[in-house]
Amino acid sequence: MMAKLTHTDEAGRARMVDVSAKRPTRRRAVARGRVRMNAKAFRQLSENRLAKGDALAVARLAGIQAAKRTAEWVPLCHSVPLDHLEVTIDLDDRERAAEVTAQASARWTTGVEMEALVAVSAACLALYDMAKAVDRGITIGEVQLLSKSGGRTGRWTRGPVRRRGD
Amino acid sequence: MMAKLTHTDEAGRARMVDVSAKRPTRRRAVARGRVRMNAKAFRQLSENRLAKGDALAVARLAGIQAAKRTAEWVPLCHSVPLDHLEVTIDLDDRERAAEVTAQASARWTTGVEMEALVAVSAACLALYDMAKAVDRGITIGEVQLLSKSGGRTGRWTRGPVRRRGD
Amino acid sequence: MMAKLTHTDEAGRARMVDVSAKRPTRRRAVARGRVRMNAKAFRQLSENRLAKGDALAVARLAGIQAAKRTAEWVPLCHSVPLDHLEVTIDLDDRERAAEVTAQASARWTTGVEMEALVAVSAACLALYDMAKAVDRGITIGEVQLLSKSGGRTGRWTRGPVRRRGD
Amino acid sequence: MMAKLTHTDEAGRARMVDVSAKRPTRRRAVARGRVRMNAKAFRQLSENRLAKGDALAVARLAGIQAAKRTAEWVPLCHSVPLDHLEVTIDLDDRERAAEVTAQASARWTTGVEMEALVAVSAACLALYDMAKAVDRGITIGEVQLLSKSGGRTGRWTRGPVRRRGD
Amino acid sequence: MMAKLTHTDEAGRARMVDVSAKRPTRRRAVARGRVRMNAKAFRQLSENRLAKGDALAVARLAGIQAAKRTAEWVPLCHSVPLDHLEVTIDLDDRERAAEVTAQASARWTTGVEMEALVAVSAACLALYDMAKAVDRGITIGEVQLLSKSGGRTGRWTRGPVRRRGD
Amino acid sequence: MMAKLTHTDEAGRARMVDVSAKRPTRRRAVARGRVRMNAKAFRQLSENRLAKGDALAVARLAGIQAAKRTAEWVPLCHSVPLDHLEVTIDLDDRERAAEVTAQASARWTTGVEMEALVAVSAACLALYDMAKAVDRGITIGEVQLLSKSGGRTGRWTRGPVRRRGD
Repeated sequence: MMAKLTHTDEAGRARMVDVSAKRPTRRRAVARGRVRMNAKAFRQLSENRLAKGDALAVARLAGIQAAKRTAEWVPLCHSVPLDHLEVTIDLDDRERAAEVTAQASARWTTGVEMEALVAVSAACLALYDMAKAVDRGITIGEVQLLSKSGGRTGRWTRGPVRRRGD
Repeated sequence: MMAKLTHTDEAGRARMVDVSAKRPTRRRAVARGRVRMNAKAFRQLSENRLAKGDALAVARLAGIQAAKRTAEWVPLCHSVPLDHLEVTIDLDDRERAAEVTAQASARWTTGVEMEALVAVSAACLALYDMAKAVDRGITIGEVQLLSKSGGRTGRWTRGPVRRRGD
Repeated sequence: MMAKLTHTDEAGRARMVDVSAKRPTRRRAVARGRVRMNAKAFRQLSENRLAKGDALAVARLAGIQAAKRTAEWVPLCHSVPLDHLEVTIDLDDRERAAEVTAQASARWTTGVEMEALVAVSAACLALYDMAKAVDRGITIGEVQLLSKSGGRTGRWTRGPVRRRGD
Repeated sequence: MMAKLTHTDEAGRARMVDVSAKRPTRRRAVARGRVRMNAKAFRQLSENRLAKGDALAVARLAGIQAAKRTAEWVPLCHSVPLDHLEVTIDLDDRERAAEVTAQASARWTTGVEMEALVAVSAACLALYDMAKAVDRGITIGEVQLLSKSGGRTGRWTRGPVRRRGD
Repeated sequence: MMAKLTHTDEAGRARMVDVSAKRPTRRRAVARGRVRMNAKAFRQLSENRLAKGDALAVARLAGIQAAKRTAEWVPLCHSVPLDHLEVTIDLDDRERAAEVTAQASARWTTGVEMEALVAVSAACLALYDMAKAVDRGITIGEVQLLSKSGGRTGRWTRGPVRRRGD
Repeated sequence: MMAKLTHTDEAGRARMVDVSAKRPTRRRAVARGRVRMNAKAFRQLSENRLAKGDALAVARLAGIQAAKRTAEWVPLCHSVPLDHLEVTIDLDDRERAAEVTAQASARWTTGVEMEALVAVSAACLALYDMAKAVDRGITIGEVQLLSKSGGRTGRWTRGPVRRRGD
């Protein structure tokens, strides 16, 4: 007798969405995040004097490389061959923050939101790693989707940014 | 004639810190992050009704698995074989946030802060992925180190948490 | 003089099949395997009391994640971006076995049999790992293809299952 | 108010065992599995005439390479740098089976059972892949630990092999 | 005030080319490299007596497997699912060199030159590894593209090979 | 009856060297390679004007990241956690070549020659990729070990460099 136990269904469910009925469309997504640090770390970052090297160069590459492997970091994501992935980093003097923006695009059956978010997260972690010897209190925050387009749900754009409590 | 160009030195520098003179000590690190979502997504998460499956189970595993491969995400990190990595997720009803905490430990020449932070980031990204069909406006924030111990710089603990603007 | 040695041809040959003349079709495959264990381990698995955690949740994810990287496990497999991959686990009280079934699908030039089999194998290995502290004598067996469709050879279904000696 | 929901504890638990109190010892493990096929496939394998190439060479390498990355396939495994990993394959004419044996060793805080089992599984999958064009009904079975030594629980050897129903 | 620092633009730039406007065409590339060694190492290689095993078999597989993951080795490469990848190795008695040739093909928006070159490089490194116990002075050289076709720039073939200084 | 076929032994042999009897010592290795290109590509590289970005920054990171994963590219290598890995790139105007040098070190039971060589190869491939739109005839050559120390065989240094035919 084969018995499917209750907890099999209730707990630990996990499924990749079946996209076999979907047709590829052009997908785009833009995501953003911020790495806030103390004055000393921010100054060294701005002047490209961090001891481990050129933090912006390293972070940008970290973002690009991680995005290509999104399906390895996010368990239920489909593998998506990207047409384009770009990471830009702006330095916000007033808030002492590096603002990381990633744009992803692909012609595929699934969206590329996670690819953009993975790129942002990896770039932020790399910045953290480059600056952590100077400031252990660095915070990564406001990692969020700014916009996406393509697919069944079409275009979505984030409303005016709420800053409080990120 | 061999000419080392200026930009070789100024731009694109990147180095793994040389730890060959360091001795292994017991290292620990605790990091935390928060995933904030709208009421509908939070309720489905809390009641384990998200369509893609058991979000907490998936996120926990995503964190553990990513942490073991920290050196692949973060370009200048050393490979560190972890003794322990644990991810816990608490649900904060008032803020409609999942709070992800990761503890890492190893007996090694380098610290495990990045391992804890990578675990948090990957778990947060997995939660995002599980809930994004319900709320596209989810925000990952306040990803930061809570404490670390071991190594040359010894114990460090974060001061009272600042919440504003993460 | 260029000399192609005999052993070059005879030994160590290995080639990816050239699929450049094939057109993508809808591919499906279903595979299955069984993890047999002693009464104590099976009871703890059934009651979700194994010390390392929720074994069915972990095994399911292990299967999904490994399947996406089939081309890394199996040297001569082509990379196939999956449309769908699902792992279900049934508990067979009489045989004290967890029965792992994986379904894979893709629209691609090559089949997805190996993806389904890799998912089953990885899920079985994860179950083994979760339960091995209770029973070192666990056996993984009867890993086989149940059916496949699509491609030049079309539909194939396994005949009535032979159970003896797997 | 922070509320830890019930299902957080009950479902989806997963933890890497904390080995930070353990001392490294010499660990060894031997695992085995069998790939059974029809007469035609077995003959081509035996005579090294399978179209995709030298199946034994490919399978051996697949096993070695997968074992080094055990922590990527098995979610809760620790990363273990192996001292040695060897895969041997014997051909059993009577049962038309390739018998894959893997031996792993390391001086480490955790055992290497999973490394040996992953090597066996990957080698079996590679054999399957090499021969599947000739026989779709191939079965991988009897994947099990033969012996292990080292660590707190010391030496363990499998009793006389039960063959029925693997 | 948001300030984009000068060094952000000048240093550390890195971008994946945006191929979203390109259409897939059939791409092919052939690359070659040579591994030169001393007489003793070359003789053992030719007679398949190197202690670590069948060097040609291992090198061929190393090339195939690395090529499938080109986007992980080469930071700004797009992921390309290959239709075909073949590695052949010829032994040149006069120059005591193994000549590694890789052919790659795909129907894709980007070329497969890097896939062919990665296959050659990985196969050469594997040969080096197999023979290094016999000759530490082995040299890998003349790694270059022989031809490519497909895409906007069409067919390209290398002119007569210059051998001096590779 | 179990029959070990002849070709099992003769063909496709592959083994990781058993290092379980070795003790860790300090290992170092230095390797070098050269990427030769035409005048136009070399000028753009020198002036950091290649369209894909800062080629030296990208190549350096490519080398560091690949070296950490040497055991994935070179099938029979042991996993070695590196203490240090540094890639430097010098531009040789006369030969229009980028000279890539990698130094690796670890306290481990096996040497780090392959890690240094993998770093060089990956950095050279990345340079190739950055410049290939300007010159398809780029050649990677003279990839070789300059020195190594540690382990049973102790220190080894390459004799005066032979340049002809690399």
